[in-house]
Amino acid sequence: MNAHNNRTRRPFVIEEAVAILSRTPSTLDALLRGLPDGWIAAHEGGDTWSPFDVIGHLIHGEHTDWIPRAKIILEHGEAKPFEKFDRLAQFAESRGRTLASLLDEFAARRDANVRELASLDLTEADLDRLGRHPELGVVTLRQLLATWVAHDLDHVMQISRVLARQYTDEVGPWRAYLRIISGTQG
Amino acid sequence: MNAHNNRTRRPFVIEEAVAILSRTPSTLDALLRGLPDGWIAAHEGGDTWSPFDVIGHLIHGEHTDWIPRAKIILEHGEAKPFEKFDRLAQFAESRGRTLASLLDEFAARRDANVRELASLDLTEADLDRLGRHPELGVVTLRQLLATWVAHDLDHVMQISRVLARQYTDEVGPWRAYLRIISGTQG
Repeated sequence: MNAHNNRTRRPFVIEEAVAILSRTPSTLDALLRGLPDGWIAAHEGGDTWSPFDVIGHLIHGEHTDWIPRAKIILEHGEAKPFEKFDRLAQFAESRGRTLASLLDEFAARRDANVRELASLDLTEADLDRLGRHPELGVVTLRQLLATWVAHDLDHVMQISRVLARQYTDEVGPWRAYLRIISGTQG
Repeated sequence: MNAHNNRTRRPFVIEEAVAILSRTPSTLDALLRGLPDGWIAAHEGGDTWSPFDVIGHLIHGEHTDWIPRAKIILEHGEAKPFEKFDRLAQFAESRGRTLASLLDEFAARRDANVRELASLDLTEADLDRLGRHPELGVVTLRQLLATWVAHDLDHVMQISRVLARQYTDEVGPWRAYLRIISGTQG
């Protein structure tokens, strides 16, 4: 399969990344706003996350992860490792808030960050610049921005799975056909 | 864990099912409408499906699967097996169409079907009525309707995964953290 016909991989193009990043808040808004509370608090057992927890996590990323790390790369390169990302910050930050207010904040922060990304006017050479992840080591700005996109989609997938699995028992024998419940990949 | 605190399973409640079913068209619209063509046609290799293919499959389900099967259960019970569902119908039916027209049709059909579901005014006794799946055997109307919900979410998950995996190479070392790409469940 040549590159032209390859439908399984796309090269990073900043306008395409922005097209997806800009759509995540409205996607999650359409999926979640107004759902009964029990669905918003649903999880997969143990310390797994609910849709409510995930939106808080995405907000925390808007504040501390993607654009701040991009700026560290542009200003300091490999010399300054990124701050570690706190994967549990949302449990304190979202306490007492409503899902509606979290969705509003996520949309506003994402909009501001996508504008800030545009204002950086990144060149291909900028995208090749190197930074240092505290655990993964040397990374490029391009990899950071591609990860921002994939991370959004990872959490859309997670929320869909958390919701669907609430009906693990209710679907009865159809369980065998539903990969989202059976856990098989297809 | 008692039933009241159980956040991993919810009983089937028709108003809650309708809340999710009603949101799927706008969720997929927000995620996909206007994305560059290469993303709409993206897939996971071989005969896996693209987002375009999935929307066609969802439309076919609106025409031939969920409500038609519910009516077979209500009218014939176990006596009449469901028609087999054609999992490949969308490849002919969607040919030459635009994603925008498929999203419009899905939204219109889903809206009509949710109204028809409401008009059936189903009781708990109706939900316990039995039907016959051509492969799975005896099922209940409740299981059919719960599967409609989980099936929607399964395809939201699939589309998210197909899109994210386009950046399998571009995310570099972050691949290890992205379950949507690494394929591990979390």
